[in-house]
Amino acid sequence: MTAIDDPSPGKSPLHALLAPDSVAVIGASNNPAKRGYKAMLGLVRGGYAGTIYPINPKADAVLDVRAWPSIDAVPEAPALALICTPAATVPELVESCGRRGVKGAIILASGFGEAGADGARLEEEMLRRARACGVRLIGPNTSGVFNLHHRLNLLALDRLQPGDIGVVSQSGNMLLSLALEAEHHGQVGFSTYVGPGNQSDLGFADYLRYLGEDPATRVATLYIEGFSDGRAFLDTARRVSATKPVVVYKSGATAQGQRSASSHTGALAGSYPMTVDLLRQAGVSVVSYSDDILPVAEGLGRLQRSPGRRVAVIADGGGQATIAADRLAEAGLELATLAADTRKMLAAVLFSQASTVNPVDVAGTTDDHPSLLATCMEIVAADPGVDAVLLVGMFGGYARRFDESLADDEMRGAEAMVELAGSGDKPVVVYSLYAPARPPALGRLRQAGVPVYDAIENAVNVLAALGDRGAYLDRPLEAPSAPARPGPRGQDLVANARHEGRHLLEPEAKALLAEYGIGVLEERLVRDADELAEAARAFAGTPVAMKVVSPDISHKSDAGGVALNLEGEAALTEAYADIMRSAGEYAPQARIDGVLVTPMAPQGVEVIVGLMRDPTFGPVVMFGLGGVLVEVLEDVAFRAAPLSRGDAAAMLDQLKARRVLDGVRGAPGVDKNALIELLLSVSRLMEAYPAIAELDLNPVIAYPDGYAVVDARILLANDVESAP
Amino acid sequence: MTAIDDPSPGKSPLHALLAPDSVAVIGASNNPAKRGYKAMLGLVRGGYAGTIYPINPKADAVLDVRAWPSIDAVPEAPALALICTPAATVPELVESCGRRGVKGAIILASGFGEAGADGARLEEEMLRRARACGVRLIGPNTSGVFNLHHRLNLLALDRLQPGDIGVVSQSGNMLLSLALEAEHHGQVGFSTYVGPGNQSDLGFADYLRYLGEDPATRVATLYIEGFSDGRAFLDTARRVSATKPVVVYKSGATAQGQRSASSHTGALAGSYPMTVDLLRQAGVSVVSYSDDILPVAEGLGRLQRSPGRRVAVIADGGGQATIAADRLAEAGLELATLAADTRKMLAAVLFSQASTVNPVDVAGTTDDHPSLLATCMEIVAADPGVDAVLLVGMFGGYARRFDESLADDEMRGAEAMVELAGSGDKPVVVYSLYAPARPPALGRLRQAGVPVYDAIENAVNVLAALGDRGAYLDRPLEAPSAPARPGPRGQDLVANARHEGRHLLEPEAKALLAEYGIGVLEERLVRDADELAEAARAFAGTPVAMKVVSPDISHKSDAGGVALNLEGEAALTEAYADIMRSAGEYAPQARIDGVLVTPMAPQGVEVIVGLMRDPTFGPVVMFGLGGVLVEVLEDVAFRAAPLSRGDAAAMLDQLKARRVLDGVRGAPGVDKNALIELLLSVSRLMEAYPAIAELDLNPVIAYPDGYAVVDARILLANDVESAP
Repeated sequence: MTAIDDPSPGKSPLHALLAPDSVAVIGASNNPAKRGYKAMLGLVRGGYAGTIYPINPKADAVLDVRAWPSIDAVPEAPALALICTPAATVPELVESCGRRGVKGAIILASGFGEAGADGARLEEEMLRRARACGVRLIGPNTSGVFNLHHRLNLLALDRLQPGDIGVVSQSGNMLLSLALEAEHHGQVGFSTYVGPGNQSDLGFADYLRYLGEDPATRVATLYIEGFSDGRAFLDTARRVSATKPVVVYKSGATAQGQRSASSHTGALAGSYPMTVDLLRQAGVSVVSYSDDILPVAEGLGRLQRSPGRRVAVIADGGGQATIAADRLAEAGLELATLAADTRKMLAAVLFSQASTVNPVDVAGTTDDHPSLLATCMEIVAADPGVDAVLLVGMFGGYARRFDESLADDEMRGAEAMVELAGSGDKPVVVYSLYAPARPPALGRLRQAGVPVYDAIENAVNVLAALGDRGAYLDRPLEAPSAPARPGPRGQDLVANARHEGRHLLEPEAKALLAEYGIGVLEERLVRDADELAEAARAFAGTPVAMKVVSPDISHKSDAGGVALNLEGEAALTEAYADIMRSAGEYAPQARIDGVLVTPMAPQGVEVIVGLMRDPTFGPVVMFGLGGVLVEVLEDVAFRAAPLSRGDAAAMLDQLKARRVLDGVRGAPGVDKNALIELLLSVSRLMEAYPAIAELDLNPVIAYPDGYAVVDARILLANDVESAP
Repeated sequence: MTAIDDPSPGKSPLHALLAPDSVAVIGASNNPAKRGYKAMLGLVRGGYAGTIYPINPKADAVLDVRAWPSIDAVPEAPALALICTPAATVPELVESCGRRGVKGAIILASGFGEAGADGARLEEEMLRRARACGVRLIGPNTSGVFNLHHRLNLLALDRLQPGDIGVVSQSGNMLLSLALEAEHHGQVGFSTYVGPGNQSDLGFADYLRYLGEDPATRVATLYIEGFSDGRAFLDTARRVSATKPVVVYKSGATAQGQRSASSHTGALAGSYPMTVDLLRQAGVSVVSYSDDILPVAEGLGRLQRSPGRRVAVIADGGGQATIAADRLAEAGLELATLAADTRKMLAAVLFSQASTVNPVDVAGTTDDHPSLLATCMEIVAADPGVDAVLLVGMFGGYARRFDESLADDEMRGAEAMVELAGSGDKPVVVYSLYAPARPPALGRLRQAGVPVYDAIENAVNVLAALGDRGAYLDRPLEAPSAPARPGPRGQDLVANARHEGRHLLEPEAKALLAEYGIGVLEERLVRDADELAEAARAFAGTPVAMKVVSPDISHKSDAGGVALNLEGEAALTEAYADIMRSAGEYAPQARIDGVLVTPMAPQGVEVIVGLMRDPTFGPVVMFGLGGVLVEVLEDVAFRAAPLSRGDAAAMLDQLKARRVLDGVRGAPGVDKNALIELLLSVSRLMEAYPAIAELDLNPVIAYPDGYAVVDARILLANDVESAP
């Protein structure tokens, strides 16, 4: 057995815990109502082959297994301890495990951080002692673990099949739900399950890493309410998703759901749209509905990816063909355009009233010859314009619907579909009305790894996930850019502002941006009549904007500190006086450094660029269209920094209103490359200056050629070590 | 039996066809591959109690029922004929039915309008003959009909249960899918099914009217690809939905789906968002996913409505509680805020670690006492702040999950839930992980009319449909307004334009609007220097816009016919000359009536109002926010005219970006009442002038007090009888 402090580089310590030679069950019980009974039952009934050490000072045996009065009394150091006792007893027991040489413990009890301040103190105490004595912790407040290929089942769940789906779920009921679904669909099996609970020590990133390394797992499936370390999870997800699919359902899509999640596991949910964007950036397949989790995991586990998004649909009824066409379009998939030859070959085997335009509708041809559906699938799969094949309709139910004698022909069809699925890289997915009845032909498909679904929506979402994953794996890989460094001027500006205990002034922010090649409008800071006159001359013939500059005034408009569209020295002089007077009245104590004069930016498309340091995900870049409507509709894209060029381009493409960037109503399109460069520069800036807590460029005006940053705001962190 | 020409007012002729005393099966066959065999099988096996007349010139009997050589030979006039023969034979056979006194025929054959021009001619011929001889038609290209309470089953579908769900589906496979789902869920039964096929004669409106009148049907459920007469359907839906729920799944949500539907039934799909808005306006419950059809129909059929949208969730696991909270919020439902007393009563029966904040999480309390879930449901149902109760989790599976001895307590819980559901008007809905296993406790719930679902998404969508229906039924009813009449000036303007064979000029359009009390900006049409000088004086001190007025120039900007923001007589004179020259160059032959001078509208919120006559739904009003983003995001609302005040208000509330109307970023809100009046006026205008084909007010600028119509375009129909 691998020791927990396995020195082999990159190997997760969890292998030792989740495939243990021996397990101590602390709190093992003969009382069927106790967790310590159920865990013992799961081990014994599940056929666990290692040694079980029930720990119970009052019993000689638990479920006929010899019991021990304490962990100190057992004859060897168990590889894993399962602690089934109440919260208050746990810190002490963890310490005793450490003394006995146990390297990992699973803590079932709730009543820790999720239960309030007292519980949080208890959790800290437990973690402190665990760290001190070298025990890694799963939980507390965990629903348990299983590893079916090792016959380790601490949940006492019955009727589980070993398979290739690994699951980590912050809800035990969700695991139960997946297990029951798997049972009802048949042929769907699991590898390892972990309930991370409060993630005191080990968290989602650790479990994902383990599933990534576990050879029995072909797809990692996670139900997540909140992360302990989101950045670590993204890093792990990026590594794992390069070799196997990672499926995540993230709860807390709404404020209402976030409150519920927080009361459940004490986890901070964070912004849902941001979380989804960052997970997808790391190659994760995010599903939006809980009833998509198992279908998508099954489909990705078996088929892994699709070469593209062009789907051919073979249907034996027009209604389902139409529904499939709708759902495919909504999911971002295309109905493949079939080649003339393909259509000819279809026409040769189908009735004349059949439609050979995709979605292909056999229009009754197969009523007494269902295996012809497989022939149609073979024909479309051979078309180079087709990336994936979806069969929708009655297949599997012909014998029942029409005549029992058709059962043999259906089975022949299933065999042909199995062969087709195994012969190339184009996914074959089946939706059947008869899936819930589990007829033999569909059983044959499932058993051979062809996914069969009982809802078109599921089948389409699987194809979308396969297409997304294919595109993710096919994306051009970019060489990592050189680490970003701060420039000399920027370093001084930041150090100076920090010294003065303030954020950057607008001209300072723009100077810093300019040092990173970010295009800002020409500007002049004026402090007296002479400088004002000079600015008026410099910008003669161009309308200008004037804005007060003060470390004590952040809402310049409220302070009457902004004037727009000014032309001519007289207008500038009047505006200068107005601004100084208004600002003085608004904040009599404010230090006023002057007034910034900039040319008015010509009309263009307003966009916004933001940067923040998220408490769980670290530096994140945000991009959106500006203006009031997008603020209301929240049409923005997020990516974790540092950005790749592909990430930046994807941010532009992701907006629902992206057509505005291409030019609408006769307006020209904007310079997307310039915006991509802007996002990359901003990402580098964030990397170079750990002292920058937040950055807002709002608005940036994008033009057919370049862009102009009209307003820039840079906030510094209070708690960062002196800026580099 | 009711005769088809039943003189009782308002009674659908379909009662005679769908509950017939006798049926002739034309093309009845002993060959199991033929439709004429399956139809006979359905009748005989289904236990049809009326007389069956198989028509087959070559057989003495079909399925042991005496056969007849032709319809002329049968000894009485059958109430219904089922025609199973190929398309080409149908017109002749319909005529023979008419001769024999048959009042209705069901045409199974395809190969009519959906198959191209030849088929369309055949369909016209069939309809012509049917009308001439008084035979009503179901189909052609229909999947058939059943009426389970009458034991009439022409589809030979097995294992159907009689029940209260009426179905009309343009896809036979969709009916099959619903039937199989119903079988797998248990306890879900059907009343009547009709496949409308091409709707040559009878269409969706007729079938819906029948289901509305049918006492065995508690919910009408329709799968629709396209309408033959959308306006008739809306009228019928409004009447039926006043007394029983109408559930519609409309396919063709995407262009891809519309093309597929059109190749399937030849139906024109129309705009999907418009169709959904109009259906909802008529009280229809529109479902977005095909796998919601049966759950929503079942839930609405059994529970009919909810008094409100505040849902209390009882959960035995945090994960599903959180998912339910998310889905409820997304569906527009609220988590009810539980009263302090309610929470105290919950706390008194639950463990201390349970959450008594909605969603209530029992946190293990019920593991050995599942009927306590019913107690919790009773407690929250008694809270006046709760409109509906949703149970999520393992109920029904406790015996299997924990201990078989719990089965009795689960059944006690089920009985208590049944009693609770029957005791008030608050819907009780159950989601259970164990629903697919159909344990006895869940069977008891279903059998007693408490819906049980196997996906949270379904359960939540049912509650949303119940809440929507409650709100629809509770909406204030408005007295019908007096019929709108054209004004004298408008009549002249329209008559004159029609006489000249042109649409209305902008000043004419605005004059017509003004006659209906619609606020347009003051404006002057100038045709020479004197009028221009007078206009300059009249608008002195206000910037103005100038626009060319010509019946031959519809794109004024393209023609250089627009100038904005002009001030002072000199500027106006220059702009006038420019516009006349540019327009002359752009269209040398154009008649130019002058230039319209209007004050520039002050800044406000841009909205658009449109009116069109849809080919299937008739006059429709459209409302949206103006500007480029909304054009891109297509955030608009539709209602069939004439509008009620409630309809108009709902259009404003429906926009995703509706917050803009309330004022964002410090801007004041707009005068919603004025916009509602505008929509009502526009609706009256459409009613008063059948000659108006299309009307666009774009933009209208909305203010905190009133609005201004900046541009108005009114197109007249070519083919309308002379305007009133």
